[in-house]
Amino acid sequence: MDGRVHLDNPHLNKEGQNDILYHIGLSKSHGLKKLFSDLRFVCMGGTPARMEAFARYIKTELGIELPTGADIYDIAGLGQRYAMFKVGPVLSVSHGMGAPSASILLHEVLKLLMYAECENVIVIRIGTSGGIGVEPGSVVVSSGILTDLLEETHEFHVLGKVVKRPMTLDRNLAESIRAAGHDAHPSFNTVLGKTMCANDFYEAQARVDGAICEYTLDDKMDFVKKLRDMGVVNIEMESSVFAALCAHTKVKFAMVCVTLVDRLEGDQILAPKALLEEFQDRPQKIVSAFIKRQLGLI
Amino acid sequence: MDGRVHLDNPHLNKEGQNDILYHIGLSKSHGLKKLFSDLRFVCMGGTPARMEAFARYIKTELGIELPTGADIYDIAGLGQRYAMFKVGPVLSVSHGMGAPSASILLHEVLKLLMYAECENVIVIRIGTSGGIGVEPGSVVVSSGILTDLLEETHEFHVLGKVVKRPMTLDRNLAESIRAAGHDAHPSFNTVLGKTMCANDFYEAQARVDGAICEYTLDDKMDFVKKLRDMGVVNIEMESSVFAALCAHTKVKFAMVCVTLVDRLEGDQILAPKALLEEFQDRPQKIVSAFIKRQLGLI
Repeated sequence: MDGRVHLDNPHLNKEGQNDILYHIGLSKSHGLKKLFSDLRFVCMGGTPARMEAFARYIKTELGIELPTGADIYDIAGLGQRYAMFKVGPVLSVSHGMGAPSASILLHEVLKLLMYAECENVIVIRIGTSGGIGVEPGSVVVSSGILTDLLEETHEFHVLGKVVKRPMTLDRNLAESIRAAGHDAHPSFNTVLGKTMCANDFYEAQARVDGAICEYTLDDKMDFVKKLRDMGVVNIEMESSVFAALCAHTKVKFAMVCVTLVDRLEGDQILAPKALLEEFQDRPQKIVSAFIKRQLGLI
Repeated sequence: MDGRVHLDNPHLNKEGQNDILYHIGLSKSHGLKKLFSDLRFVCMGGTPARMEAFARYIKTELGIELPTGADIYDIAGLGQRYAMFKVGPVLSVSHGMGAPSASILLHEVLKLLMYAECENVIVIRIGTSGGIGVEPGSVVVSSGILTDLLEETHEFHVLGKVVKRPMTLDRNLAESIRAAGHDAHPSFNTVLGKTMCANDFYEAQARVDGAICEYTLDDKMDFVKKLRDMGVVNIEMESSVFAALCAHTKVKFAMVCVTLVDRLEGDQILAPKALLEEFQDRPQKIVSAFIKRQLGLI
């Protein structure tokens, strides 16, 4: 094993064949190896603004300097869909909301990593989530993923048929991230726990404040408590497809999400904006500590 | 029937209870009736840039003038997820990619329409798609939706269980849009036809250029031809949840998408950027013609 990304698709990477990575506005013919071969960490999160903030933060943390007059810029701007920043060995990319949006991005980033011949890359989702039984502001490093049907496989639809693929996570990686984060930021409540990945924000997550709700508050609480009893400590909307695609392509994947609400207490996100922003910085700080430890900087 | 949006959720709209529409950065306490009660058309598309362009275009088309020094601005900017512009009776909103992202937006927009007491609202998705058997640049007004498992219901996950809801479209609305578009822009190939809504861009749409592809070119062509034989003329990624949520809440919904590629010919989107941009303007022009006819302007 050379540590490179090998993709199970015989139709790709043929001699003299270009490949347009449409949604990130790049293509194989851009000379991706020269531009991206030093990547070691792909960090992904929902919004363009958050991922630009992470790029600027990790730039400072890693002490990376650019020539006078130069600044980071959105490499994927041409695609108008995702924002993508490169800071030394770190790619910081937004993936939008939900598994389908995340899946498009990951397909194209995996191809980028293959064409660029990157080695030993670690993919980390840095996000927000609803919590179960942990105080808002807790940081959850996922030890396993369940779907919103409480299954351990992600359901792909391939040529009109269901194909289920396991969502295996790397337990050692999760524990290393938690340990690095805990050491650097002992004041955060950083925990390992299971994550439920849902297909929508309202009904699939048992919220009662969506446009449709045909169940009672008791039904909702029964479901949330059932999740808690299964070891689920947070709920978000992208991990299942990331875990399944990364497991299938043998790329290491971890997920680090802050919780914004305790679903045992309520549905609405009521914390003031400044506090929510401080919460959203926490996964970035944890992942930065992990990256610095991996690079031997701390 | 008063033409207003009535939502099937007894937990909502109680006296004195606020409701934070988190992802669009608004809340019931903003006084939504005063701000939005004149809305008649909600137009949604994937990217913020395209929906800002549509807002500016429809502003000119409807002859709406703002006071000197004023410009449209992104009302949902605080949420950092979607872009939302209001131009007279038209709301122009981005929904991101895929059904989960679209679903969050539509839940919150439906609640906004209810709180604002809007009447007789029509929701239209203006998007891009892959075509089947029509030349790139064709505009498809959907006459029906199939999922990527070739079913006529959208699968919701509610409290851990599957709930299937029909994706019924308003045939008269689709025909009115096609007729208005054809009359205003006879040079476009504007057709009625079925749409397949897929959960991802690659495997579910039978592309061979994703990070994973475990089928042959023959398998792929068999599937695309099967779709063609079922009357499917285009493929996209959001219509199923829009159609199902709108049918369930009795809100009129239509979809108008341009095709960027003919999937019988290939997978990659190879048209030059300028031509793609001209293609992407077409659904905007068709929908603008329909809105002007509805408002008695043409």
